[in-house]
Amino acid sequence: MNGSCIFGLEECVEHLESPPDVVIKRLPLYARSLRYLLQEGVSSVSSQELGERINVTAAQIRKDLSYFGEFGKQGIGYDVEKLLHQIERILGLNQEWPAALVGIGHLGEAIARYEGFRTQGIRISAMFDSDQHKIGQEMTGLVIHSVDQIDTIVREMAIRLAIIAVPGNFAQDVADRLVVGGVRAILSYAPIVLQVPDHVWVRYIDPVAVVHSMTYYLAREEES
Amino acid sequence: MNGSCIFGLEECVEHLESPPDVVIKRLPLYARSLRYLLQEGVSSVSSQELGERINVTAAQIRKDLSYFGEFGKQGIGYDVEKLLHQIERILGLNQEWPAALVGIGHLGEAIARYEGFRTQGIRISAMFDSDQHKIGQEMTGLVIHSVDQIDTIVREMAIRLAIIAVPGNFAQDVADRLVVGGVRAILSYAPIVLQVPDHVWVRYIDPVAVVHSMTYYLAREEES
Repeated sequence: MNGSCIFGLEECVEHLESPPDVVIKRLPLYARSLRYLLQEGVSSVSSQELGERINVTAAQIRKDLSYFGEFGKQGIGYDVEKLLHQIERILGLNQEWPAALVGIGHLGEAIARYEGFRTQGIRISAMFDSDQHKIGQEMTGLVIHSVDQIDTIVREMAIRLAIIAVPGNFAQDVADRLVVGGVRAILSYAPIVLQVPDHVWVRYIDPVAVVHSMTYYLAREEES
Repeated sequence: MNGSCIFGLEECVEHLESPPDVVIKRLPLYARSLRYLLQEGVSSVSSQELGERINVTAAQIRKDLSYFGEFGKQGIGYDVEKLLHQIERILGLNQEWPAALVGIGHLGEAIARYEGFRTQGIRISAMFDSDQHKIGQEMTGLVIHSVDQIDTIVREMAIRLAIIAVPGNFAQDVADRLVVGGVRAILSYAPIVLQVPDHVWVRYIDPVAVVHSMTYYLAREEES
């Protein structure tokens, strides 16, 4: 399979390389900016203008997009709606993805109630917790199930995407159950690196680590 | 000021370059792993073993640490407690950082109640919201103030770190107020790129963008 021309875009050109993961990580940011532009009624944008909105150079944007075909015309810029549609298609967002959410504490509840997922192609479709007081309760119209049922329910519902919002010491066990159930992509808020098979993608969100990468600079300022 | 030898580490050697930001972002992950090792009672670790825990090569770890001096001994590995202590010092975690939290919705509440910040050097010390029903209420022992008071209170308390958990359309205004109050580092959960002066650091957490960078791979699997 050709790694870059699989989406049937009309303008798709041949590339030798598959896009690196760092490019894939930037595509959602392009899509996000294009959504704002569309809301603002902007119909055309240059790579320069788009770049300024996301702190990426125009050259980087053009290079990133070139992995997927030819977008925009020299000197005219991109058609905002069309480019957004194309990027969403590349990201698989022309369909809705059901997702499992494991861990219904404060963070899990915030995730369940967050509109950003629902309005952008990610539907939390199954919820799990280990707390006997929460199991059987409803939230956002869904019954909270026991973590013991993760693999069965995830498999039954053909869910391949999951969000882990449990403490670090439970996260590996939860990940194992998700993988057994057929999950192939995990967003984990637990501050540990998960061991998963090669075919499973994991991304992490660790706000403490992010903040600690800034206290470095604050501490330097104080010393100077 | 020499960018790499400012921490007075005993083994500090001279370097020509300042560490790039990508290195600074990895340091908290090293510290996190070392904390786990310490909890597990491990006293010594090789760069190989440490790397396996965080999906980083041993060579990368050695190179990253070399910006800050000489750590560990050839063939013996790192003293876990000592290396952790040194990295925490580099990251400015030998002191506690007061932080402002703006936006006390579900996400803000989850952040306020999250133990991870409190136990790792980040103390939420002031809270703000724009909702008249929330202003004046208490949470985790703190009174929620009006966003109108951000700059005054932040300045009074000498807070230089802030977490933004408001919707995208309010985030820029909040960031402006924080900067006026003297904040120099912002963690933003709002899905927009903030415009801030050069001397202010901003990091973003956008879970939707992160998930979208994985649906790309899920969509490819379905096509194959």
